[in-house]
Amino acid sequence: MIYLAVDAMGGDHAPAAILDGSILALNQDPELFLYFCGKEDVIKAHLADKTYDQSRVEIVPADEIVGNDEHPVEAVRRKKNASVVVALNLVKDGKAQGAVSAGSTGAFLAGSTFIVKRIRGIQRPALAPLMPRMDGKEVLLIDCGANVDCRPQFLPQFALMGSAYMEKVMGVKNPKVGLLNNGAEEGKGNELTKEAYPLLQQCGVNFGGNAEARDIVTADFDVVVSDGFAGNIALKSSEGIGVMLFSLLKKEMTRNLRSKIGALLLKPALKNLMKYADYTSYGGAILLGVNAPVVKGHGSSNAKAFCAAVHQTAKMVRMDVVGTIKAAMENIKGEDA
Amino acid sequence: MIYLAVDAMGGDHAPAAILDGSILALNQDPELFLYFCGKEDVIKAHLADKTYDQSRVEIVPADEIVGNDEHPVEAVRRKKNASVVVALNLVKDGKAQGAVSAGSTGAFLAGSTFIVKRIRGIQRPALAPLMPRMDGKEVLLIDCGANVDCRPQFLPQFALMGSAYMEKVMGVKNPKVGLLNNGAEEGKGNELTKEAYPLLQQCGVNFGGNAEARDIVTADFDVVVSDGFAGNIALKSSEGIGVMLFSLLKKEMTRNLRSKIGALLLKPALKNLMKYADYTSYGGAILLGVNAPVVKGHGSSNAKAFCAAVHQTAKMVRMDVVGTIKAAMENIKGEDA
Repeated sequence: MIYLAVDAMGGDHAPAAILDGSILALNQDPELFLYFCGKEDVIKAHLADKTYDQSRVEIVPADEIVGNDEHPVEAVRRKKNASVVVALNLVKDGKAQGAVSAGSTGAFLAGSTFIVKRIRGIQRPALAPLMPRMDGKEVLLIDCGANVDCRPQFLPQFALMGSAYMEKVMGVKNPKVGLLNNGAEEGKGNELTKEAYPLLQQCGVNFGGNAEARDIVTADFDVVVSDGFAGNIALKSSEGIGVMLFSLLKKEMTRNLRSKIGALLLKPALKNLMKYADYTSYGGAILLGVNAPVVKGHGSSNAKAFCAAVHQTAKMVRMDVVGTIKAAMENIKGEDA
Repeated sequence: MIYLAVDAMGGDHAPAAILDGSILALNQDPELFLYFCGKEDVIKAHLADKTYDQSRVEIVPADEIVGNDEHPVEAVRRKKNASVVVALNLVKDGKAQGAVSAGSTGAFLAGSTFIVKRIRGIQRPALAPLMPRMDGKEVLLIDCGANVDCRPQFLPQFALMGSAYMEKVMGVKNPKVGLLNNGAEEGKGNELTKEAYPLLQQCGVNFGGNAEARDIVTADFDVVVSDGFAGNIALKSSEGIGVMLFSLLKKEMTRNLRSKIGALLLKPALKNLMKYADYTSYGGAILLGVNAPVVKGHGSSNAKAFCAAVHQTAKMVRMDVVGTIKAAMENIKGEDA
């Protein structure tokens, strides 16, 4: 059995989408056991008419909620009974093997670091979403916002963690790692990337050199490492262009009768494309570097997206991603700040 | 008459596309005078069968070329007779009022700074491309790679220069400036953006707060300021997603007979959309902060794109963008490093 803690109250569509998605995952995976952390009466009411194996669900009461507008660190420290804090404490206490939340990213990051705690040797846990690549595969972008100011030695740690994830969970052999940079040639970069480059060459990953931002989706890197600020810019720029192009496409397709008929004929073909429009709501961003798999679902997660995040967390438990990172860290030196 | 220096030898399709685009601009704008800097025989041979007003063209011999693989600063210092150096010297000597090149970005940056020189009070000239916005307008992203490591006080200078350009050349009244950041709320950011925020509030531009990367194209900022590293990531991420989505769209549209017919019906509508696919080849990125308008055409510029870059440079001369920046700089304090 795989035991996961679910923050039932976090997310724009919580608790409905969170509980529906979790039940979906529960019904698909007979080895799953879920703790629903949140307001007991609300959760009970929502689950009342649902069909699922009740022996694999436990409601853990948590009366408080951390909002997106709260200071994450303060909120996590003050609200001992917040759903996200209760969920992470289940992991800390060994009752759950991993946790999933679609609530405040900051609170989930802070809580995971304070409660679940960092893996020995990892100085900064990092947030890592998967992005779709042009060739149909996926690339892990790490870090995307957990650490907006980075020291060079953090980046090889990101590279090791990202490689472990892509190998274990995504089944990529010898994942190719790129360093997000402002030019492809060696020697390009700002102070951070110039110093990180030789560290990445030495840290034991399959380092493929600099990745320009356009290479993230158009080239063959499996992992792209970055400080959290630049990674966030890359992720959200992509999101912006996606939103813009799909919105313009929709507008052009309804411009007149001719284009409406064209759009109708193209509909099945475009469905394949549309998954790229909302890739950010697929699954979640993984927080790598803490002592258990913790996954942050997109704030706007619907049931399907949250279900994917639950499966993702379970797979990380099954494939022992954390154990792989721990083993890799024993081969890399570095001060433990 | 407006006198511009053209680096005839710079760019992937030089000199043909450069000369063709320049002649196109010359024939459209009767007030234009162009100096073609480059190998005299090559230029003469290419122009031999072209129709244009020969009294408004002068060939200035320059036997050397700076390649993309050369160290920009060294190349500009060593190759006194390189086409880009000769073009910029015409500006320095007052013969030309502005310069255009589609060659090595680094060499053009270095040459502009060393030869044309910085505007008094501007610590770092910055590279600024226009990006298309979802609402059909355009946004200037400044800096996109000239300064990969920035101090906070550079950013208000970027804001002032960008505002001057958008107001004078693009006709935007009171341009709204955003600070590229990893979150919309005040207080978000890395060390640089947190320190730059209050400086932007005080520098006299219409500061609209933080811009997340997705806001660049989806919101209503006219200018988005950034250090050159993050700006480069934003620009090239957008480019990558654009390339990916259009490539996938094309693939889906030729998947079977049904989608082929649909695509045919949609063709006119999609033409409007396609301009977003290659916006980076439209006009050029402006280098703001030196004593004359200098525009860097995209390396892959065709004649049409280079023609747009020439018109852009001429408009900067006509609207006295440099004079506007100079005036604005008198209202902002700052050490002159």
